[in-house]
Amino acid sequence: MRIGSGFDAHRFAGDDRPLWLACLEWPGEGPGIDGDSDGDVVAHALIDALLSACRAGDIGSLFGVGANARGAGMHGAPMLRETLARVRDLGFAPVNAVVTVIGNRPKVNRRRAEAQDTLSALLGCPVSLSATTTDGMGFTGRGEGIAAQATVLLHCLP
Amino acid sequence: MRIGSGFDAHRFAGDDRPLWLACLEWPGEGPGIDGDSDGDVVAHALIDALLSACRAGDIGSLFGVGANARGAGMHGAPMLRETLARVRDLGFAPVNAVVTVIGNRPKVNRRRAEAQDTLSALLGCPVSLSATTTDGMGFTGRGEGIAAQATVLLHCLP
Amino acid sequence: MRIGSGFDAHRFAGDDRPLWLACLEWPGEGPGIDGDSDGDVVAHALIDALLSACRAGDIGSLFGVGANARGAGMHGAPMLRETLARVRDLGFAPVNAVVTVIGNRPKVNRRRAEAQDTLSALLGCPVSLSATTTDGMGFTGRGEGIAAQATVLLHCLP
Repeated sequence: MRIGSGFDAHRFAGDDRPLWLACLEWPGEGPGIDGDSDGDVVAHALIDALLSACRAGDIGSLFGVGANARGAGMHGAPMLRETLARVRDLGFAPVNAVVTVIGNRPKVNRRRAEAQDTLSALLGCPVSLSATTTDGMGFTGRGEGIAAQATVLLHCLP
Repeated sequence: MRIGSGFDAHRFAGDDRPLWLACLEWPGEGPGIDGDSDGDVVAHALIDALLSACRAGDIGSLFGVGANARGAGMHGAPMLRETLARVRDLGFAPVNAVVTVIGNRPKVNRRRAEAQDTLSALLGCPVSLSATTTDGMGFTGRGEGIAAQATVLLHCLP
Repeated sequence: MRIGSGFDAHRFAGDDRPLWLACLEWPGEGPGIDGDSDGDVVAHALIDALLSACRAGDIGSLFGVGANARGAGMHGAPMLRETLARVRDLGFAPVNAVVTVIGNRPKVNRRRAEAQDTLSALLGCPVSLSATTTDGMGFTGRGEGIAAQATVLLHCLP
């Protein structure tokens, strides 16, 4: 078995771009998240957690960094699919994964089941998604941005 | 096996309510923690970690949110007991759990053994509790509030 | 098996002390990190993670706290070696470990392989190191300091 962990944080955008999180679009929950891709911190934290568990670099080494990178403009779902293929190539598969969203919006709990089902189908294992605020404190509490922490457990393929 | 993770952060209260943390009261360590329950971020992070590992929602879905919720006014110990019962109903039991407290007070290390024994008895597995500060930086460093990060490992009951 | 987790955060120093992180010196990456030891938050988070997994206290209880402590002035490598010896004495050995650095500098990715190899040799297991920023937000985003989050998986020695 192997353990992995990932963290990502991004600012909310100042424009009217759509909000993507956990591989879902969240209409009516305010502006989206800044970043070269769609800013989906849940997907990005999961990718870093999966890659860390098999010591295969991180999201930047797999998809590049910056506006001209291969990952620029990519949604979380195809990034997660490619990450999982890399993990399996290295001889591992996920047992389960958990992600905690830290931020004021979107209201994750309203669509938790849908988000969990989407992520679980992508990774082929149970994925749990929870959300918390920081009670008005810090950059997440002030609504400047959003963070996600992911932890994964992998087993070795036979 | 399953992995789980939880995070919680709350403000310190402006009044003289008692300080509860890790299912212990901490007299002489300053005002308590704000929140609808007793504000015990250690217990709450553990609950979220346990529920996430078996994909059973989070503390809000189990105990409700707000001043009229079932969990309002509840201490951490009965909340942890009920959470553990849910975990066992789903066919899992904790192997071990670790919690990191991030904040300036209380001085957790002075009563670490007592806190660990209390939490270990509640969960029926070894629970480790450590504490760190953020060196005066951020909302925990300024003493505005306190945070806790919990990670758990579960095994499947036969 | 056992899971462990650790977190550490320190300020960047105001003087010209060398920067130590992940048991490497990082010349040309700006001033070092404040602290009684060399301020290596990666090593310190790993030490707390290892100790938490076998419920053996934390870095403060093993090396002391303050300018006169046994650990004052110690580099991360000998601290990690002593921690691993304690872990093995208690009947455990690491399966793998992952660390996420949260901060603006140093540019960890440029020397990721070297840092991972150094940490893996010290712990006798695969260690993954990744790095992220907080997009200019919070104390890490403003460049006040640096944080590290470590997660480890241990197995029981036969």
